[in-house]
Amino acid sequence: MCAQYCISFADVEKAHVNIRDFIHLTPVLTSSILNQIAGRNLFFKCELFQKTGSFKIRGTLNAIRGLIPATSEEKPRAVVTHSSGNHGQALAYAANLEGIPAYIVVPQTAPNCKKLAIQAYGASIVYSEQSDESRENVTKRILEETKGIMVHPNQEPAVIAGQGTIAVEVLNQVPLVDALVVPVGGGGMVAGVAITVKALKPTVKIYAAEPLNADDCYQSKLKGELTPNTHPPETIADGVKSSVGLNTWPIIRDLVDDVFTVTEDEIKYATQLVWERMKLLIEPTAGVGVAAVLSQRFQTVSPEVKNVCIVLSGGNVDLTSLTWVKQAEKPVPYQTLSV
Amino acid sequence: MCAQYCISFADVEKAHVNIRDFIHLTPVLTSSILNQIAGRNLFFKCELFQKTGSFKIRGTLNAIRGLIPATSEEKPRAVVTHSSGNHGQALAYAANLEGIPAYIVVPQTAPNCKKLAIQAYGASIVYSEQSDESRENVTKRILEETKGIMVHPNQEPAVIAGQGTIAVEVLNQVPLVDALVVPVGGGGMVAGVAITVKALKPTVKIYAAEPLNADDCYQSKLKGELTPNTHPPETIADGVKSSVGLNTWPIIRDLVDDVFTVTEDEIKYATQLVWERMKLLIEPTAGVGVAAVLSQRFQTVSPEVKNVCIVLSGGNVDLTSLTWVKQAEKPVPYQTLSV
Repeated sequence: MCAQYCISFADVEKAHVNIRDFIHLTPVLTSSILNQIAGRNLFFKCELFQKTGSFKIRGTLNAIRGLIPATSEEKPRAVVTHSSGNHGQALAYAANLEGIPAYIVVPQTAPNCKKLAIQAYGASIVYSEQSDESRENVTKRILEETKGIMVHPNQEPAVIAGQGTIAVEVLNQVPLVDALVVPVGGGGMVAGVAITVKALKPTVKIYAAEPLNADDCYQSKLKGELTPNTHPPETIADGVKSSVGLNTWPIIRDLVDDVFTVTEDEIKYATQLVWERMKLLIEPTAGVGVAAVLSQRFQTVSPEVKNVCIVLSGGNVDLTSLTWVKQAEKPVPYQTLSV
Repeated sequence: MCAQYCISFADVEKAHVNIRDFIHLTPVLTSSILNQIAGRNLFFKCELFQKTGSFKIRGTLNAIRGLIPATSEEKPRAVVTHSSGNHGQALAYAANLEGIPAYIVVPQTAPNCKKLAIQAYGASIVYSEQSDESRENVTKRILEETKGIMVHPNQEPAVIAGQGTIAVEVLNQVPLVDALVVPVGGGGMVAGVAITVKALKPTVKIYAAEPLNADDCYQSKLKGELTPNTHPPETIADGVKSSVGLNTWPIIRDLVDDVFTVTEDEIKYATQLVWERMKLLIEPTAGVGVAAVLSQRFQTVSPEVKNVCIVLSGGNVDLTSLTWVKQAEKPVPYQTLSV
């Protein structure tokens, strides 16, 4: 497996040793009402309780602790990334922990609360225009100016290995798990999880969950070749707008068993269901996995897939933007369910 | 203690045996950021994860399982209460579990979501006008018509004993706890908790937390005599609008170490802080305890009170009514804290 893909399970094991003393072993929760609705036993891996409010700290901390030499002379001057979301916050936190300056490139239009969170973790914000080109140029300039190293949110192998540690924990916490459901954007989490699960317990299924409005992973699997989103996707699940990349694609192609797409209404409904019934303040991106398990197509999954673990990827919700809550209606596919 | 008060610790022990197989042993969570803000080690007893979304199931289930004879001939025909809130839902759930019809008297003006929740647990709703008089009359009529028994939300001794089981769990889960902070309305929870803690570990402090707008407990302690609210209180913490009653007062008078009052802004701010930082969807009533610990007066509590457990009483929030979130400003007393 080492030769085939950008990481092997050994990298995940190393990542686990690198980071486990600095992150939370997040709990797995259950809900009898959600079980009833889904018709299976659901297990919720609560990465919303993780440091910085999402799983992203696993990857960034492993990148920083794993890639950086131990002696201070060889430490990089800085780490750099572009992300106004959870990866930006996580890199800021991890860099701060290791005493390395972090520069996070964000579009000027990013929500204020996200900028504040990045600054609260001690990182510097550098503004770009909203275009991909401007973002790339600014990032390149900052890398040169700071002599820093780039930590890509989902294609960096050390990041992918870090995210795989979620699966190490889940296999211990839910020994009878039959399937893991993971939201997919760039694919760092699902790739890390797939490498881990297929190494330790290959009979366990790996299902990716994706907004219909950002269905590059589904299209790629359908066509058997990497097929990025052709335009910036519009979805409330802002954590999975990225397309699968060159490093994660081979792993997803070979080791992910299926991809489930869900509509915006399904995402909103599932997110609100978790809020109301489980009292967990997940972000809509985490609702994508829940929506997948409640979707009509998931009902065609074999009943032998009884114990299903959904990774609740994060809980960084902008509370002042919850205007959609009022509009969240039960989507048509759910109207047959006993919700 | 048995002779002095309406319950003794032995009643709490019996309650624990009665209910423990039917409720969740709710987790105790921590947050390093909340510790920083409060300057103490905080432990959050998560009753928002309890069956029916609040601690109230402990009391209602103990009342139903403990008071009702085992043989079916002697079972009451029905249980009755007046409460559109968490007690109504909890009684509906507990009665359903024991196969006894439940009638819940609610004002016609109660929010739709609360009526739906009561009905979802299989209880019948009976409408009253909003006045206390109408509520009493309707309840009396239903008791006569159904030959049912009344389960009072906070003055029924079996309910008070049931709520005391929270403290049995906390003393096991947080062995080094120095104080428990409990929101107070009618006082069922704080009385049950106080009886338990002062029996098992009398050095542990019991602090009641109360909205300034419904400060009958504070006034009663100040005057040394039961002093109910003179008019229906206006507070966002709708679970603690009731006044302390005849059964809970002697326990509160003797065993509660102090009462902390908090403003509406402090409650909103603390609630939102728990949402944003801990990702726990608590209801504002649960935020009252958090607000108390963050209040200016709490800073005068001895630094020896290091490990403080706050009971997060429930999570039944009407998500469509969150318009106040946007207005929640940092209240003046908190402006010195490093939030």
